[in-house]
Amino acid sequence: MTDRSDVTTIQVEANAEALRRIGLASPFLVDIKSAGDVIPELGEKELLHAGPPLSGWDEACGALQGAIIGTLIHLGLAQDREEAESLAASDQFRLVSANDRHALGTYAGVIARATKVFVVENRSSGHRAYAAINEGRGKALRYGSHDPETLKRLAWLEGQFAEILATAIRKIGGIDLFELLVQALHMGDDGHSRQKAASALFANTIAPHLIGTDFESKEIARVLRFLTETDIFFLPLTMAAAKSTMLSAEGIRGSTVITCMAGNGVQWGIKVSGCGSQWFTAPVPSIQGRYFKGYGPEDASPVIGDSEIAETMGLGAFAMAAAPALAPYIGGTPERAKELAVKMYEITLAEHPQFKVPSLEYRGTPMGIDVRRVVETGIEPIFNTGIAHKDPGVGQIGAGYGHTPMACCVAALEALQATQYQ
Amino acid sequence: MTDRSDVTTIQVEANAEALRRIGLASPFLVDIKSAGDVIPELGEKELLHAGPPLSGWDEACGALQGAIIGTLIHLGLAQDREEAESLAASDQFRLVSANDRHALGTYAGVIARATKVFVVENRSSGHRAYAAINEGRGKALRYGSHDPETLKRLAWLEGQFAEILATAIRKIGGIDLFELLVQALHMGDDGHSRQKAASALFANTIAPHLIGTDFESKEIARVLRFLTETDIFFLPLTMAAAKSTMLSAEGIRGSTVITCMAGNGVQWGIKVSGCGSQWFTAPVPSIQGRYFKGYGPEDASPVIGDSEIAETMGLGAFAMAAAPALAPYIGGTPERAKELAVKMYEITLAEHPQFKVPSLEYRGTPMGIDVRRVVETGIEPIFNTGIAHKDPGVGQIGAGYGHTPMACCVAALEALQATQYQ
Repeated sequence: MTDRSDVTTIQVEANAEALRRIGLASPFLVDIKSAGDVIPELGEKELLHAGPPLSGWDEACGALQGAIIGTLIHLGLAQDREEAESLAASDQFRLVSANDRHALGTYAGVIARATKVFVVENRSSGHRAYAAINEGRGKALRYGSHDPETLKRLAWLEGQFAEILATAIRKIGGIDLFELLVQALHMGDDGHSRQKAASALFANTIAPHLIGTDFESKEIARVLRFLTETDIFFLPLTMAAAKSTMLSAEGIRGSTVITCMAGNGVQWGIKVSGCGSQWFTAPVPSIQGRYFKGYGPEDASPVIGDSEIAETMGLGAFAMAAAPALAPYIGGTPERAKELAVKMYEITLAEHPQFKVPSLEYRGTPMGIDVRRVVETGIEPIFNTGIAHKDPGVGQIGAGYGHTPMACCVAALEALQATQYQ
Repeated sequence: MTDRSDVTTIQVEANAEALRRIGLASPFLVDIKSAGDVIPELGEKELLHAGPPLSGWDEACGALQGAIIGTLIHLGLAQDREEAESLAASDQFRLVSANDRHALGTYAGVIARATKVFVVENRSSGHRAYAAINEGRGKALRYGSHDPETLKRLAWLEGQFAEILATAIRKIGGIDLFELLVQALHMGDDGHSRQKAASALFANTIAPHLIGTDFESKEIARVLRFLTETDIFFLPLTMAAAKSTMLSAEGIRGSTVITCMAGNGVQWGIKVSGCGSQWFTAPVPSIQGRYFKGYGPEDASPVIGDSEIAETMGLGAFAMAAAPALAPYIGGTPERAKELAVKMYEITLAEHPQFKVPSLEYRGTPMGIDVRRVVETGIEPIFNTGIAHKDPGVGQIGAGYGHTPMACCVAALEALQATQYQ
């Protein structure tokens, strides 16, 4: 058994190293590729989903089932819903946690080998992470919709849209995602649920380079129209940027920093640096939310999604003080949202050296969630999220916020202590 | 002499009408034209400048002299600085207040018949207003620069750039400027000195339509690059939107609402609704500012510019609570900037029905500056501004804020009282 003072030194140094890596990350969008080309271990009969691993189709929530059905039809593996359901429920398909393959599922979105993904590279560490293209507001596969309109748009997004956008990205040689996020936090984004500024800046960055490509101007205009009208477009880019950042802080012996938070519709899970890629789970928490007209809490899906990786990097609900206009969307007042975010400084180890909040007199966002502080203070890490309907095929019905359950954090701290570096 | 109670009723009704017109305004960008085509009364030998009328060249401050020199060279009327100076000082040219021709000079910028101007139409009232194209950051004619680089850029902006942009604007059939400004206030703009969000949203709006024009893609890409890199591009659009709005509230018998604030580098002037287009002036106020490296207050030009028309509509310094990231640019903390803005509710008659500040729990910006309240409370209306070097040709050296002198307001109130409707 290690001496207590040694343990403390190890922990302090381990966390300092984790914070250094998170703060110095430099993620660039470098390409759009088929997931199978960049995640070779992703099998032909596998689908990546958000959150910790699920046992299979029967455990998938309605929104995820809807997205799986839509994906199988979209890939031409099933003709209709019934065929997709029986295929998905068969032994032929396996559900795999996206996070465990360095990919991310936005809400209930799934990733197959043929799914087009953004390739984001953290140029400080070399880590790469992947997330699917955002389908825009309204009905979307990631919220469980799979009607013909949703699938038609998806076919275009993964086809011509991806081809044109990827051409421009490659021409530029990579887009510095933190450069855009830093500005977006000065423009009312939280870097998770509100991506209006980052999406507008991204469209501006790419627009002149799109024009220089050899595609027909009508097709380029269509790409630009989608980019400029989709105010949540940047979300998967933030997610992949955060994942490529947090991967660099994974597996530091003794570090108590949370490197991942995500839900699969049944279980909520976290990872902590000192325990590498191990999940610590608890039943999904409830969501405080605002519902679109005609819907209420009784219609809501249990929470699912990998986008809370943004919170682990100091964005999202942790940066809500930067985004007063987000508050009505998730249900609440700007003042209350700010209070919730500021509370997070009590469980984080540092302030982000790049992401600053003007209205907090340019204080850095709370960065590096310390699972030990969470347990000691009893303050659960906050996150914000969309809300999907519980039934497959309906889509988004609201947005809100929740807290990572204390039980995940207690389990992670106990596991860290068992490593004898705590 | 009218009975006092009648007077009060007239004043209340007059101000209600002014507020109604300001709140209901709906300015659209409809075209880019040569000033001479849309302001027929603008003579061949006239130059429009910011603020109340000047007596002539000798009274013009250094920055304005620099802009006049640059404009005469740019128009091919002078070969060099010496020739331009002697021409400008001669009887051949006359300086005219831009505001008196429904046009606006950004800082020291001048408008000749050949100058390309944005044409903005208030579709609620039919009023039109005009402002020149923003030249971007760095050296610019509007700050008195007139070196070859500045003039080369200007030639392109008023030539091919204006032609391509105007084609797209006409194709769209007009761009709703308030729609963009409303969003921009939720994205950290104040609508005057910070135009980063509005400029990005404007570029987003126009981009897909630029592509559909018949110009060469290389030239379209150049236009888009300038639009997306110029984070102050939207400023003249805000100014013309505000002017077309405030014109609709001009000349309401008995109204004490300020409809214009502007400086010419010597005098600061205001107009009040009940006195129509009459100016009330006082010596220009001093500016609290932040200076770029290597410069200080001793280098500063006295304040000049028409952009404070934005403040009269509830934007600019009146909306600084929406723009915490503006504070460092003008010198100060976000908290202090917010205090300064909130103070303005004490001298305004209403809250803007469209421009809301999320961090003030969606309160409308202070709208309708009441010259009577200004005099009664002793609170001078605030504005923010860039700072130019006092010598011609140097350009911008900082930014800051100042207050409309009480003397203008006292003079205006006395004139209103003399109309016997007060």
